[in-house]
This record gives sequence, C-alpha cells and structure tokens, in this order.
Amino acid sequence: MSDLKQERAVRTRNQILRAAAELFDEEGYEGASVTRIVKRAGVTLGAMYFHFASKQDLAREVMNAQPYVIEPLLRSTGLQRLVDITLVWAHRLQTDPLLRAGVRLAVEQGRFGMHDSASFEGWKDIMVGHLEVARAEGDLREDVSPEEVAQFVVGACTGVQLYSQLVSGRDDLMERTCTMWRLLLPGIVTPGALPAIVVDPGLVKDA
Amino acid sequence: MSDLKQERAVRTRNQILRAAAELFDEEGYEGASVTRIVKRAGVTLGAMYFHFASKQDLAREVMNAQPYVIEPLLRSTGLQRLVDITLVWAHRLQTDPLLRAGVRLAVEQGRFGMHDSASFEGWKDIMVGHLEVARAEGDLREDVSPEEVAQFVVGACTGVQLYSQLVSGRDDLMERTCTMWRLLLPGIVTPGALPAIVVDPGLVKDA
Repeated sequence: MSDLKQERAVRTRNQILRAAAELFDEEGYEGASVTRIVKRAGVTLGAMYFHFASKQDLAREVMNAQPYVIEPLLRSTGLQRLVDITLVWAHRLQTDPLLRAGVRLAVEQGRFGMHDSASFEGWKDIMVGHLEVARAEGDLREDVSPEEVAQFVVGACTGVQLYSQLVSGRDDLMERTCTMWRLLLPGIVTPGALPAIVVDPGLVKDA
Repeated sequence: MSDLKQERAVRTRNQILRAAAELFDEEGYEGASVTRIVKRAGVTLGAMYFHFASKQDLAREVMNAQPYVIEPLLRSTGLQRLVDITLVWAHRLQTDPLLRAGVRLAVEQGRFGMHDSASFEGWKDIMVGHLEVARAEGDLREDVSPEEVAQFVVGACTGVQLYSQLVSGRDDLMERTCTMWRLLLPGIVTPGALPAIVVDPGLVKDA
C-alpha cells in the first residue's frame, strides 16, 4: 500500500472505531447495530468488514483502545505515572466516548457472550511496567509486587467508577479516585518516596 | 395474620427470592422470565405478585439481600469485621446463588434500565457502622473517615470480583481479596492496631 492509501486506511479504521464507541456508549452492545455504526462513520459495510471481522471484534477493539487514549498524554514515570493514568482516566471518562464505551463493554460483556479479560490485562501489564520502574528506583515497598499492585488498581478502578456512576453519574469519580490513592499509597510506597507522590486533579485537567 | 400464616408467607417469599436468584445468576436479568421463576419456586403467579410488584422489584430485592446472607454468619467487630465480611463474600460467591445473582445484577443493571445504588449503599452503610466502632477503639488512622474507607472497599470489591471472574471464573477471588487487604490496611489502620488484624481465608471457610 502507498503511504497515502495506508494513511486513509488508518483514518477510516479510526472513524469506524469512534462511531462504534459512540453508539456502544449511548446504547450498549445490543443497541448498536452494524448498520447504524456504518452510517454514523460514513463508510460502506464493505469498509467496515475490511477492518473488523464482526461486531464482537469491533467491541473487543473498543475495549482494548483505552490505553491508546491515555498513555500518549502522559510524561511522568514510576508510581507517579500510575496515579496520573487513573486521574486522567477518571477525568476523560466524563466525555470521551472511546473510554466510556470501553469501560461499559468491559463491565457488561458477560451479557452478550464475551469473556475477554484483555482490556483488564492490557492495563495491568502497562501498570506493571511502570511499577517495575518504581521498584528499580526503590519507591515500592519490599513486601509488595508490581503484579499484585497493578492487578488490584485495575480491579479497584473498575469498581469505583461503577459505584460512582450509579451514585452520581460519575460526577464524584475524580474525588473517589483521589481517595483511593490516599488510602492505598501508604501500603505500596516506601515512607521516603511517599511525600513526592502528587495526587492532584488540577494537574491532569488539561491532559 | 396468624403466626403460622406469617411463617408460611416468609417461607414462600424466600422460595421465590431464591428461585429468582438462581435464574438471574444462570441467565441474567432478561433470560429469567417470571413464568420460569414461578415454576422453579413452585408457587402461583398470584403468590409471586403478592410478594413482589414486578420482575424489577424482585431483582432489586435480590441485589439488596447480600448482607442478609453474610452478616448473620459473623461475630467479629470493628475493622476485623470488614475483613471478614469481604472474605466470606469472596468465599460464598463461588456457590451461593443469592450472592452471585446479587452481584451480577448490581453490575449489569444499566443494561436493563435500572440504576439502583441501594446494594452498594447498603453494604457501605453496614461497613461505616463497623468502621465507627474501629474509630471509637482508636484503630482507624486519624486522616481517614469511615465513610471514605467503606465507599472505597465496596467499590474495590466489586471491581476485583469482576476482574477475577473474567480471568479465572472467580477461582482466584479469595487470593485477590487477601491482597487487597494487605495493600490497603497500612493506609487505614493505626500502626498499633495493624498486627492484630487477621486476613486468613482459613478462618472463614466454614462461615
């Protein structure tokens, strides 16, 4: 493929992904028909099936796209990066259809016959990477492993947003995410590193 | 109503609740028709509508029944009670239809038009009560409130079980719940009280 063609293919794929995310977010998996996704994306059915094998495949890609929305926005490293990922996630979950649909599908997937842990495992692996940096820098308490911290943070964030959504339509999600870190940091960070970790929603508002 | 009649009414209500829970657990909200619930409970449609106004009402009661399954099994107090609640919950989620359905419905309720935070808030209120005992006993760190700890634990448990279900069909839920406490306790318990808190799956296996 020529560069131009390749570029157009990437753009079309993203258009479909975003249209699907908007409809999945608004109406859930069953409510979003392929016909309507294609119409909203402004592409042909052929183009859609060129890029995605099925609606389930599309749902899987939407679920797994979350890190690609957030990771490029961040520059921090180690434990601070973990905090920043969750705060940006909490902030952008208010408005970004790709994140909103990704979380909704990940939670509801059992309902439509999917049992795909890839979006959880994807986030977990990314966090393990950042936690290994924290470990190398001596910021992580000796008695905890990157794997178990990452696993817990991914699970906890999933449940915290679900609870926040029911109680406040996610209005208090940022506050709940900050509380999570205030409760959790003493158990995972060395006392020496603790004061340097910043949990500040103001810092991620523009990310 | 005579005592005998009242007793029979309670029994019938429980039969319906349990049959509904089994079907909600196996097939989700939409899959469980009122006709099949009534058939499995061995009661008439009239009896069902005497006790529950609608299928949604039944789903709400199943979601809110979780504490009634677990709280009577426990004797501990304060922070230890919080730990024990979550371990018994993790253990019995493997087999108890009322708990399994309650959690499934609470997570999936957006799909069938319910937005009821009562099961989350119910657990949260119970935990706040136990945490106020912990506070009175001087076991809770000064910089955390019963409300925020309870709120976080309820959210975190919800997400941890969801992740565990996708990865291992909840086989590793007990292990993940113990990890949660190991990471979380240093941030919520006073250093003096910490060594006395026991996180031991063996102790709740018979509960």
